Amino acid sequence: MENIKVIIWGFGAMGSGMAKMLLNKKGVEIVGVCDMAESRVGKNMYDILGADSEGKPAVIINPSIEDIVKNTKADIALLATDSFTRKAFDKIKFMLENKINVISTAEEMSYPQAQEPELAKELDRIAKENGVSVLGTGINPGLIMDLLVVTLTGCMLDVEHIEAKRVNSLSPFGPAVMEEQGVGITVEEFNKGVEDGSLAGHVGFAESIRMIGDAIGWPVEKIKTQMAPIVTSVDRKSPHGFAAAGNVAGVNMTGQGFVNGEVKIDMIHPQQIEPEMEGTFTGDYITIKGTPEVNMSIKPEVEGGLGTIAMCVNMIPHVINARAGLKTMIDLPVPRAIMGDMRELIER
Amino acid sequence: MENIKVIIWGFGAMGSGMAKMLLNKKGVEIVGVCDMAESRVGKNMYDILGADSEGKPAVIINPSIEDIVKNTKADIALLATDSFTRKAFDKIKFMLENKINVISTAEEMSYPQAQEPELAKELDRIAKENGVSVLGTGINPGLIMDLLVVTLTGCMLDVEHIEAKRVNSLSPFGPAVMEEQGVGITVEEFNKGVEDGSLAGHVGFAESIRMIGDAIGWPVEKIKTQMAPIVTSVDRKSPHGFAAAGNVAGVNMTGQGFVNGEVKIDMIHPQQIEPEMEGTFTGDYITIKGTPEVNMSIKPEVEGGLGTIAMCVNMIPHVINARAGLKTMIDLPVPRAIMGDMRELIER
Repeated sequence: MENIKVIIWGFGAMGSGMAKMLLNKKGVEIVGVCDMAESRVGKNMYDILGADSEGKPAVIINPSIEDIVKNTKADIALLATDSFTRKAFDKIKFMLENKINVISTAEEMSYPQAQEPELAKELDRIAKENGVSVLGTGINPGLIMDLLVVTLTGCMLDVEHIEAKRVNSLSPFGPAVMEEQGVGITVEEFNKGVEDGSLAGHVGFAESIRMIGDAIGWPVEKIKTQMAPIVTSVDRKSPHGFAAAGNVAGVNMTGQGFVNGEVKIDMIHPQQIEPEMEGTFTGDYITIKGTPEVNMSIKPEVEGGLGTIAMCVNMIPHVINARAGLKTMIDLPVPRAIMGDMRELIER
Repeated sequence: MENIKVIIWGFGAMGSGMAKMLLNKKGVEIVGVCDMAESRVGKNMYDILGADSEGKPAVIINPSIEDIVKNTKADIALLATDSFTRKAFDKIKFMLENKINVISTAEEMSYPQAQEPELAKELDRIAKENGVSVLGTGINPGLIMDLLVVTLTGCMLDVEHIEAKRVNSLSPFGPAVMEEQGVGITVEEFNKGVEDGSLAGHVGFAESIRMIGDAIGWPVEKIKTQMAPIVTSVDRKSPHGFAAAGNVAGVNMTGQGFVNGEVKIDMIHPQQIEPEMEGTFTGDYITIKGTPEVNMSIKPEVEGGLGTIAMCVNMIPHVINARAGLKTMIDLPVPRAIMGDMRELIER
């Protein structure tokens, strides 16, 4: 049986991380990389990664996806370019119409039914017409604040209230994340950024809340989200960030899902540099009230960058095996590490 | 659409617990209960449960499964009678041949490929011939020391070693469990019971280890298990158990899965009455070494009895929806609580 053939579209931190991971896996190969960054176009993927090609042909970074699709045969594309369904839509559509399965890192694509129900229907239709599947996933949304919550409700007779809390450190991240999350700016600048929409914060609460609600049969009628600055009382310094005392060290995102007028799902997600400096310890926490109660913690939190890379790669066999259409994490078998030959996981 | 119709076979603590749970769910009804216990035969299920029938017809406990199957139409049977595949086999076969899906609480049935590969193949064949599915599940095996482990590896690039530890209290359990686990006996009696096989301990390590190995692609070549007495240094008393100082308060089960000569999967599962009396705090712990590392804990442990009841009931829609054959938890979408109408979860 031939290797599973993968195209990577978007070769930033996520896309190149997936490439590195794939080079260490058996039964799979990268047949094309699409990226528009001038610093990367025309270069050999193996050189960018600092990896040994072990005699395999060069994979030259190509800014034209049409070119790549015309000249290679691929089973699946890993799309690591966007956060929003609307922005990723045309790219996903193009791959599906070329009968290539898609896994997208776009946070909204983890449950596009939540905020883009029309586009979700359209993607489902296109995927089915072409006999392929599309899935959005990542560490969060994708696992920590949604799929893991759903899985843990599986041992419950009755669920009364769900709280999912992810307390993570932004210290390992680069300048782009520092800017998106407002690290180092003043509270005034932060409030202005929230108002004009230039501060992204975490994208995914609506998706996680809807995924949980639909999975366990709670009709969520309203979702609220809030975004507040985490103001530091001491100077905090990380490799790529600095927040002086009195300024913003990160963002505290909160969200609520309402069922029959009551808050049934609480999401709490503070992200900041150097949280330990003021006694905050990172971790993932799921607290489910009901019968029996479940109190889960993962300490420290699962590292977001590596987690997202792994989730996307590890879902490749499930997406190839799936019946055609738009899939979400609650439709497919559980994710799992791939320590053997990836081809053995493909159903024939 | 008609209600989902369920037969319960075995009306002990598990079977009757599932019945109670089902009475609180929408879109599902119990159409038959099979049990041989003289104390139950001929009685109305609602009376045994102390539940209001709300005008529904009586469900009389019937010792003849043939009778029940002949006179009712059922979508699925919940089989709560055995721990071992070999003992449950004829019962499962009978249901499948009557085109009724099956969920079994038998620990070995959670992954019958592990210890009964021939019977597993046979069940798969029979299920496929009859267009129905069979699944074994429960809290453990079924979730805590296997499916949850597998799910958490999903966010990992690479797995080096897995430790799953379930520290639970036997205090809520009745006289049968006290006897099975050797609570209150002397160390000599315990050792004799291990030797002659009369002490069951936990059934499921082989199943959990194989499930994990097969899921992530580790070829497990050998499984070892050990069973040691937990000797108490103080008198311990639970509602149905008593262990005098110097005697056995429970069982410490350990197990190892070997891959290429190395222990890659460690299972640790001490069960005892009143663990807090000697400073042991209950909980479920999963520690996975690799990239990134994952350290999960659930404190206290998920209650075993309720957890098993919930897992079996909550998997009903997944088993009805599955393609025909023998299924395991790693083949199906993640378990989840059912807070809405069960019929809405059935794919047509």
